[in-house]
Amino acid sequence: MTDFLLPIETLRRRRGVKWHRYGPDVLPAWIADMDFAVAEPVRRAMARLVEEGDYGYAAREGGDGLDRAFADRMRDRFGWELDAGRVVPVADLVQAITASVVAFTEPGDGVAVQTPIYPPFLAAIDGTGRRRVVDPLVDDGRRLAIDPRGLEAAVDAGTRLLLLCNPHNPSGRAFEREELEAVARVAVERDLVVVADEVHCDLVYPGSRHVVLATLGPEVAARTVTINSATKSFNVPGLRCGVMHFGSDALLERFRAALPGRLLGTVGVTGVDATVAAWREAQPWLDAVMEVLTANRDRVAAWAAALAPAIRHHAPDATYLAWLDCGGVAVDGARPRDFFLERARVALHSGAEFGPGGETCVRLNFATSPAILEELLGRMEGAIRGSVYPARR
Amino acid sequence: MTDFLLPIETLRRRRGVKWHRYGPDVLPAWIADMDFAVAEPVRRAMARLVEEGDYGYAAREGGDGLDRAFADRMRDRFGWELDAGRVVPVADLVQAITASVVAFTEPGDGVAVQTPIYPPFLAAIDGTGRRRVVDPLVDDGRRLAIDPRGLEAAVDAGTRLLLLCNPHNPSGRAFEREELEAVARVAVERDLVVVADEVHCDLVYPGSRHVVLATLGPEVAARTVTINSATKSFNVPGLRCGVMHFGSDALLERFRAALPGRLLGTVGVTGVDATVAAWREAQPWLDAVMEVLTANRDRVAAWAAALAPAIRHHAPDATYLAWLDCGGVAVDGARPRDFFLERARVALHSGAEFGPGGETCVRLNFATSPAILEELLGRMEGAIRGSVYPARR
Repeated sequence: MTDFLLPIETLRRRRGVKWHRYGPDVLPAWIADMDFAVAEPVRRAMARLVEEGDYGYAAREGGDGLDRAFADRMRDRFGWELDAGRVVPVADLVQAITASVVAFTEPGDGVAVQTPIYPPFLAAIDGTGRRRVVDPLVDDGRRLAIDPRGLEAAVDAGTRLLLLCNPHNPSGRAFEREELEAVARVAVERDLVVVADEVHCDLVYPGSRHVVLATLGPEVAARTVTINSATKSFNVPGLRCGVMHFGSDALLERFRAALPGRLLGTVGVTGVDATVAAWREAQPWLDAVMEVLTANRDRVAAWAAALAPAIRHHAPDATYLAWLDCGGVAVDGARPRDFFLERARVALHSGAEFGPGGETCVRLNFATSPAILEELLGRMEGAIRGSVYPARR
Repeated sequence: MTDFLLPIETLRRRRGVKWHRYGPDVLPAWIADMDFAVAEPVRRAMARLVEEGDYGYAAREGGDGLDRAFADRMRDRFGWELDAGRVVPVADLVQAITASVVAFTEPGDGVAVQTPIYPPFLAAIDGTGRRRVVDPLVDDGRRLAIDPRGLEAAVDAGTRLLLLCNPHNPSGRAFEREELEAVARVAVERDLVVVADEVHCDLVYPGSRHVVLATLGPEVAARTVTINSATKSFNVPGLRCGVMHFGSDALLERFRAALPGRLLGTVGVTGVDATVAAWREAQPWLDAVMEVLTANRDRVAAWAAALAPAIRHHAPDATYLAWLDCGGVAVDGARPRDFFLERARVALHSGAEFGPGGETCVRLNFATSPAILEELLGRMEGAIRGSVYPARR
C-alpha cells in the first residue's frame, strides 16, 4: 500500500511552490508538505464537489461538519473530550497564532516560546510588537528537551502568553507528559494563556505518543487555545483550513472581544470537505504513510549517525522533519543551508530562521519516496565529504 | 445557451445553505448566490485540481495569478489601469471591509455609508465600536440616488472612512459618473479613505455601466481601497477568494502597519484557480447568464408594476437583487419578510436588516430559472392579493 508515492517526473510537473522555487537540478526538502498523493477519501470529496458543481454559500462552514469531525477525532485518538461549540475555523495555523497573540497580549508584553521554533512563531511575536521570551530547548544527549527550570526562569512578570508547539517543529519532539506538566504548571502559576499548536499530532512514530495539553487538567485546559488542522497530516495545506479550540467560554469571549467578527475571514467548502473526509475516513492512508515515514526517519538517523560528528541529529518522535546540526561541517563561512543548496543542489530550510540554537542547523523534510530521499542524502553526503571535513582531516 | 439553468430537483439536492435553511415547501430567494451551474472553465479548473491531486503549498497564492488576472480584467473591461503589486488577496468581501474599518479608523470614528445597505457593512461599523454616519439614498421617483448635499451634510469632522457599495446592494444601482464624482469630491475635501466594494461590477444591465471609482482621478484613487471578487459574478462564493487593491503605496502601508501579516489568513488554491479561470475564460458564460438575468429583472419589474402601489420597485441597473418596498401591503403587523415566508412560503432577505429606509422592504434574489421565478412571484402575488390589500379594498 504505497501507491501514494509519486515519481520525480510527476512531482516536477506539479504546480506547487516546493518543486518550483529552485531550479530543475535541485531536490527540494524545505517547505513542509509531502511528496505523496492525497488519500482516496479526500480525492473523492474533491471530486464530489466537481460533480455537483455547487460552490454557493455553504451550510457547512465551521458548524455542521468541521467542529464535530474534530471533536470526534480528538476523543477517539487522544481521549480528549472537547467542546465543539468552542471550535473556530481558521485558514491556517499561522493566522491562528497571530490572532492569538493579538487577542491575548498587548504590545510590549512577553510571549514565551521554546526555541528553535518554526519561524512564523517568532514573526507573530516580532511583527506585532510583542517581546520574545525565549526558553531554549536543552540537548540532553538523547533529544532536545524542555527544561522546567529554564522555563520558570525565562517567564518574567510581563509575560502573558506561551506558544507551545507540540509535536515540536523543527525538533520533532513529541513532548512527554512530564515536560508538558511542567509547562502547564508554569502557565497556571504565572497566569499565562497557552496556545498549543498540535498540528503534527497525527505524525507520531511508534514508541512515542501525543499528549493533548488540554487533557492535563481543568486549570490548564481553561487557559489553552488548541490549534489543529488536517492539512499537515493529510497533505492538503493548499486548501487552507484549520481549527482553534478555546478551552473555556471566558477564553473564547476574550478572543471575540479583541477581534471583530469576520476579520479573520471564513473557510472555503473545499477545505472543510477535504478536512472532514480526511479526519473521518483517511486514517488507513495515514497509517500506510506513517510506515514510509518511519523508514525514512530511520534512514536519515542512520545516515546522520554515519556522518557524526560532522552532523549531529536526534531522530524525531514525530513530524517528517529532521533537524540536523551541521556545526561539524566546514561550510566555508556559508550558512549550512546555502552550502547544501550550492554544493549538493538540495534545498533545505535554514536553521538560522528558527531563532537561538538554530544557526548551525538545517531542517530537512523527509516526506518523499525512499528513492528520492536516498538521492538527496547521497548528494548531501558528497558535499560534506567533499568539503574540508574536520572529522576526516 | 442556457444549459446553466438547474431544475428544482437538482437545486434541492445541493448542500448549500440557500436551499436548506428553510423547509422543502419554501422557495428560497434570500442569500445572494445563483441557482446556476458554474462556467465550464471554472469546472475545468476544479477538475484539474482533482486530477493532479496536488493540494500542497501553492506557488499561486495571490502573486502569480490572481493579481495579474484581476489587473488585466479591470483594464480590459473598465479601462482601469491598476497596480498589481498593490493587490492583497482576502477570503471575502466582509473580511475586507472589516479589515479596512479596523485599519483606517479608531473606535468612535465616523464611517459613512449609503443606506439601505448590505447588513455586514453596518455590522463592520457597529461591531468595531465605530460610529455610523448614515447617508440615505433618496428616491427621486426613478431610482434610489446619492444626494451630494445629503452626503456633505452627513459627513462630520469625526468621519474618517466612507464605505461605498457600487453597484449597490440592495438597490441595484450602478451609480452614474456624476454621483460618483460627488462622492469623490467629498472624500477628497474631507480627507476620507474610501472603501469601494465593486463586487457586482460584472452584473450590469444594458443601458447602465460600471464606473470604477479609482478611475475618477489620482486624488480619489490614492485614497481608495477597491474590493472585488469573482465569487459573485461567477457563482463561487463557497470557494472564498477576493482581492483588495490599494490606490497608493501609502494606503497599503497604513493597512499593513495596522494589521499584522498573516492575521487575515491566506487564500486557498481552489479559490485562486477558480477565480483566475473565471476572470480569464468565463465571460461567454456570464454573457449568457446576463441574458437570463435581464429577462428576470424585467419580469420582476413588470410584476411589481402590476402590484403597485402595494409594491414599489425600481428595476435595478445591476445585480440580481430586487429591492421591493412592500409598504403598501397589509402585512398584519408582521415584517414583510415574515409575511412572505408565512403566507407565500418564499424566503426573502428582510429589509429591516439593511438599516434606515429598509423597514418596509424585502430583497429578492432573482438569479434562478424563469420557471422557478414565475412560481415564486405567483406565490407572493397570491399572498398579497389574499391579504387585506389596501389598493383593492
